[in-house]
Amino acid sequence: MCDTCGCHAPATDTATMTVDVHESLLAENLKQAGENRRHIDALGAYAINLISGPGSGKTTLLEHTIDRLGKELRIAVIEGDIETERDAARIRAKGVPAVQLTTGGACHLDARLVHKGLHQLEHENSGPFDLIFIENVGNLVCPATFDLGEHQRMVLVSVPEGSDKPAKYPRAFTGSQAFLITKTDLLPHFDFSLEEAKQEALRLNPDLAIFELAAPTGAGFDAWLDYLRKCRKR
Amino acid sequence: MCDTCGCHAPATDTATMTVDVHESLLAENLKQAGENRRHIDALGAYAINLISGPGSGKTTLLEHTIDRLGKELRIAVIEGDIETERDAARIRAKGVPAVQLTTGGACHLDARLVHKGLHQLEHENSGPFDLIFIENVGNLVCPATFDLGEHQRMVLVSVPEGSDKPAKYPRAFTGSQAFLITKTDLLPHFDFSLEEAKQEALRLNPDLAIFELAAPTGAGFDAWLDYLRKCRKR
Repeated sequence: MCDTCGCHAPATDTATMTVDVHESLLAENLKQAGENRRHIDALGAYAINLISGPGSGKTTLLEHTIDRLGKELRIAVIEGDIETERDAARIRAKGVPAVQLTTGGACHLDARLVHKGLHQLEHENSGPFDLIFIENVGNLVCPATFDLGEHQRMVLVSVPEGSDKPAKYPRAFTGSQAFLITKTDLLPHFDFSLEEAKQEALRLNPDLAIFELAAPTGAGFDAWLDYLRKCRKR
Repeated sequence: MCDTCGCHAPATDTATMTVDVHESLLAENLKQAGENRRHIDALGAYAINLISGPGSGKTTLLEHTIDRLGKELRIAVIEGDIETERDAARIRAKGVPAVQLTTGGACHLDARLVHKGLHQLEHENSGPFDLIFIENVGNLVCPATFDLGEHQRMVLVSVPEGSDKPAKYPRAFTGSQAFLITKTDLLPHFDFSLEEAKQEALRLNPDLAIFELAAPTGAGFDAWLDYLRKCRKR
C-alpha cells in the first residue's frame, strides 16, 4: 500500500506503522460503506459512484441524464469536490435535489462523508429516490480505493484525455462495473482510438459495460438510459 | 491533514495517529527533496515539476518543446506514471534521455522515487543537462503536497477540462510558479473562459506566470520557450 495515501503501492522504510494506520482506516471506511449501503437500500434507492479525472464531464453527463430521465425516475445527486459549491448548484438548476460535499483538501470522498451527505439529502428533501448519483472528486487514482456504499461504480474517460488512460490508471477500471467514454462528439478533433480504450479496459475487466456518450448530441444516450432504468429495477 | 493521504483535509476520529505518521512522512519527503535539489544543482541543471490531471497534454507539451528547444538546451525527462513505460518511450523517440518511474499504484511521485530517477538518469546517460522536466502522475490533487526537489512547479489545465478548475483544485495553483493553459487550439469547440481561468488562478496566486499554449499550431510557444531559456540561466 502507498505510504502516503490509501492507494496501492509498494511498501517503504516507514512501512509497518503506515500500513497499520491505513489498514485501520480502510477497515473503518469499509464498515461505514456497509452502513451506507443498508441506508440507501432502506431508502429504496440504487447508488452509483462516478469516478474520473478533472473535467471529463461527470456533471455535464448528469445534467443531460436528468434532462432525459428526470421526469421518469426520482434522481438525487451527492456532489464531491475539494472546494466550491458549483456542481451542486448546476444540478439544482435542473430541478433535482443535490447535496454538495467539500473535502477541504482531500483527494477523494470517503464513506463517512457520504454518510453525512445521505443524512443531509434526507433532511433537506422529502424523497424517496430511485437513483442516487455520487459524483466523486475529479481524480482517477485515489477514489478507486474507497467504497462509499454504492451499488455500482462507473469510470469515465473523455475523448480529449486520450485512449491510453485505462492502461495507465488500471485500478479505476478493475473496480468498476461500467466504463463511460464521454465527449465522443469530439472524436474528429483528437487522436483517440475507441478500439484501444475499449480493448485495454476489457483486458483489465472483461465484465465492464461500455457506453460511448456525446451529451450535446445525445449520441449513445438510448442505451445509457436503458442501463440506468435496469439499475433501478435490480 | 487528510486521514488517508498526505493532502490537506480536516482531521477525523483516527486523527492523532494518522497525523503523526503523515507529518513524519512529509518531513522525510522534504528532507529527501532538499537532497534532490542539491543533487540537481550539482548537475548544473534546472528542474521543473509538471502537475495536472490525466490527459491535459503534459507529454505532448514536452514533445513539442523538445522539437523546438532540443538542439539549443540539453533536456532530460523523468516520467512518472502508475503503470506503463509509454511516456518515456515517446520522449526517447524525440532523441532525449528519459527515465520512467512507475509508482506501482501510488497517486503521486515522491522525493525518494525521484532520487532513484536522478541516479538512473546519470547512470544511463552522459549529461550534463540544462533542464530536467519531471512529469508527475496525472492527478491534480495529491502531487501538489510533495516537494520533489524541483526548482519550479508548473500546473497545467487543458481547454477541454473547463475554466472552473483553478477554483476547484486550489492547492495545485497556490504551490506553483507557472500556469499553462494547454490545447488552446480547441477553444472554438468548448465553453472555456480564458478570463475566468486566469482570474481564478491569479486570485489564488498573484505571482503566477501564465502561458496559453497550442502544441499543434505552436501558438504561445515563443513566450514559453523564452521563459524556459531564462529558467536555465537563473
